[in-house]
Amino acid sequence: MHDELKAQVCQANLDLVAHGLVTLTWGNVSALTADRTALVIKPSGVSYDAMRAEHMVVVSLATGETLEGILNPSSDTPTHRYLYQQFTSIGGIVHTHSTHATMFAQARREIPCFGTTHADHFYGPVPVTRPLTAEEIERAYEHETGVVIAERFAKLDPLAVPGVLVASHAPFAWGKTAAEAVKNAVALEAVAQMALGTLALNPAQKPVEQFLLDKHYFRKHGPDAYYGQK
Amino acid sequence: MHDELKAQVCQANLDLVAHGLVTLTWGNVSALTADRTALVIKPSGVSYDAMRAEHMVVVSLATGETLEGILNPSSDTPTHRYLYQQFTSIGGIVHTHSTHATMFAQARREIPCFGTTHADHFYGPVPVTRPLTAEEIERAYEHETGVVIAERFAKLDPLAVPGVLVASHAPFAWGKTAAEAVKNAVALEAVAQMALGTLALNPAQKPVEQFLLDKHYFRKHGPDAYYGQK
Amino acid sequence: MHDELKAQVCQANLDLVAHGLVTLTWGNVSALTADRTALVIKPSGVSYDAMRAEHMVVVSLATGETLEGILNPSSDTPTHRYLYQQFTSIGGIVHTHSTHATMFAQARREIPCFGTTHADHFYGPVPVTRPLTAEEIERAYEHETGVVIAERFAKLDPLAVPGVLVASHAPFAWGKTAAEAVKNAVALEAVAQMALGTLALNPAQKPVEQFLLDKHYFRKHGPDAYYGQK
Amino acid sequence: MHDELKAQVCQANLDLVAHGLVTLTWGNVSALTADRTALVIKPSGVSYDAMRAEHMVVVSLATGETLEGILNPSSDTPTHRYLYQQFTSIGGIVHTHSTHATMFAQARREIPCFGTTHADHFYGPVPVTRPLTAEEIERAYEHETGVVIAERFAKLDPLAVPGVLVASHAPFAWGKTAAEAVKNAVALEAVAQMALGTLALNPAQKPVEQFLLDKHYFRKHGPDAYYGQK
Repeated sequence: MHDELKAQVCQANLDLVAHGLVTLTWGNVSALTADRTALVIKPSGVSYDAMRAEHMVVVSLATGETLEGILNPSSDTPTHRYLYQQFTSIGGIVHTHSTHATMFAQARREIPCFGTTHADHFYGPVPVTRPLTAEEIERAYEHETGVVIAERFAKLDPLAVPGVLVASHAPFAWGKTAAEAVKNAVALEAVAQMALGTLALNPAQKPVEQFLLDKHYFRKHGPDAYYGQK
Repeated sequence: MHDELKAQVCQANLDLVAHGLVTLTWGNVSALTADRTALVIKPSGVSYDAMRAEHMVVVSLATGETLEGILNPSSDTPTHRYLYQQFTSIGGIVHTHSTHATMFAQARREIPCFGTTHADHFYGPVPVTRPLTAEEIERAYEHETGVVIAERFAKLDPLAVPGVLVASHAPFAWGKTAAEAVKNAVALEAVAQMALGTLALNPAQKPVEQFLLDKHYFRKHGPDAYYGQK
Repeated sequence: MHDELKAQVCQANLDLVAHGLVTLTWGNVSALTADRTALVIKPSGVSYDAMRAEHMVVVSLATGETLEGILNPSSDTPTHRYLYQQFTSIGGIVHTHSTHATMFAQARREIPCFGTTHADHFYGPVPVTRPLTAEEIERAYEHETGVVIAERFAKLDPLAVPGVLVASHAPFAWGKTAAEAVKNAVALEAVAQMALGTLALNPAQKPVEQFLLDKHYFRKHGPDAYYGQK
Repeated sequence: MHDELKAQVCQANLDLVAHGLVTLTWGNVSALTADRTALVIKPSGVSYDAMRAEHMVVVSLATGETLEGILNPSSDTPTHRYLYQQFTSIGGIVHTHSTHATMFAQARREIPCFGTTHADHFYGPVPVTRPLTAEEIERAYEHETGVVIAERFAKLDPLAVPGVLVASHAPFAWGKTAAEAVKNAVALEAVAQMALGTLALNPAQKPVEQFLLDKHYFRKHGPDAYYGQK
């Protein structure tokens, strides 16, 4: 079952590599089934060279148990599950340790919106979570990672800001599909790199004006979008 | 019609990717027809993998309407149109969000001429536009982007300084042809990266002396040029 | 003899190149035979293009003499030998001059653990050796390089911290096998690059809390590990 | 004539591209004939894609006139000629605008020896020339570029320090052959990048001790060298 979704998730994982976002096996993509009862996710710690669609693991959204597949699902599966449960508008999630986004995550700094590249993808700064407590890490680390992300998005729309930096860890990105989540992960890494250089040129650089943010975001999103093809 | 120009514009778009200036679909190239009545431009938001010459869109320079092609032209078409109308010596335009040039655009800093790499391509600093106002953005954003570029070039020769940084956005570059515009976009990204490192080594670095700028620029341009083949 | 180990060591050397850790011939990998009496190592100064398994050199662990092979072993062989003698839990060693790890080695700064990428591979900071003295360098330079590394690990477990920066030189990494050593060398370069950017964003950035370090390290190592496949 | 040397010089030019040292056509390699009467050099402004051995131009060392070839020689030919006349131990020269070496050239800072990567190739800092005067630039720019390089090496051995940064311009490197010059150009770019990061980590970083410089340099050069194969 879910052959097409497995193929999409496998391809999305390979696309992460092609886009230069993955070192070794540090990355994973999942997608939700159409009925939102299960997620298809990369197996844990498997080499990208050998990865094929049939290796993808199907996990119950409600219980976390493996429904299909003989390999262990990604160890980050509980984070994915919780995010799908909380963010009911999304259908695909990407986790990477992409170089420049991870620098911001490690410095526990949000990525300000310094230009239109950012505004085209993220309607406001890319936020950073609070650090997990010792108790949270001990209790259910990957699940609690999802909890601090959702907590940070209490007043944010996950489709308007489709990514986050987990403090001292690395980025997550998402979208309506796995492919869209990959695009947002690519954009997140690019805007992180550009922001790093912008701050090197001007440590006091202010974010763009709200009207520029509005214009670029709504040029690509919402009822009045006119970017791309119909 | 315009089959050869479509092929050139398609190739120029693919060359941007080969030179590492493009992430996702963030880039576009156009060229003007010989009679300067129409421009051939990349379609909006189309993947580079699938792009072929016949996808290029022909747009009327005077009216902006699509003359040939079933896809939407790049959403930046109004900027290209206005620049061709104002800069009557140019025949090709490139827009990218190339990493290091965009850092300067986001920091709203011009790129000073720190060496001969720069002087070979840009006769003086690569200028930065003023930010667009809320009114300009609301009225006709892409058109007004062309307007602030042309405003910045009121006292500059577009062929002597074949590129610009749009504040909080990214670079545009141009030339007599699409291929020349691509070369200038490549040079712009390279001098931006070198300038970033130069400023890291010496934040107070002064630009080169005017006589070095003159020598390198006129070595490659104008009646006494002796670089390259006849 | 040792045909399979030679093939593994040759492949590990080529993998260093594929991972972008090697410029020119600046890198070498070795592995220990199962009986820990000999090591198989890259020949000195040979181009990676021409390298084949039969070029690998077999060297006696006890005496350093060449047991098999017509080429000179890597000039760093005495360092490898000493490390195998001192670190009895390891079976493969990698030496590179990878760009970002070497920046830290040249600045004689350890790499603090700023995030989970680091914690997944190194249980604590990546340490830096003291500089060698003039006497040590003159006496037996490559051997003494091993000595200062072992000295630095007097209170460290080489499998918990599978890498080091030699002051004013470059990194060494290791593992149970040559392939594992390569993975640790890749991780070391990645965490060095991320740490450089983290310090650019916040020069006073503190390392992660001990409980996060514990969690990530023991998620992948030891009896309670649950990352990857069984 | 000189078919083999033309093939070597063509290959060396292509190797520059493969090593990532060349953007567009910004680079050239030459080699001297065995009788030191002529040099074989890249044609000016020719695309690397189309470059073949028969395009290489043979130029008289004494007079600068073209002896063979229908294309113009590199516009930097007078610099190459002067260096061969002054540095009688060298047989190959490389000029690039490689990114990080050019940053130092533009900042007019020498590259200090911060580690063994540097010491293996350059016996001391990579020096920077004084800027050319307006008169020198006007008189015979490329020739005078050679003059300021030679002036800077009045007390230096060009084979011990096989490279230089021309102020506000870019690096030159050299060696006994074109292939050796390419290796030194690759090493120069690598040590420039590493030095930039080292200074980011510690702006006051001191160069390595003289005894380490001696050890690494003489390990690879001179009668007691033991690096590589015999």
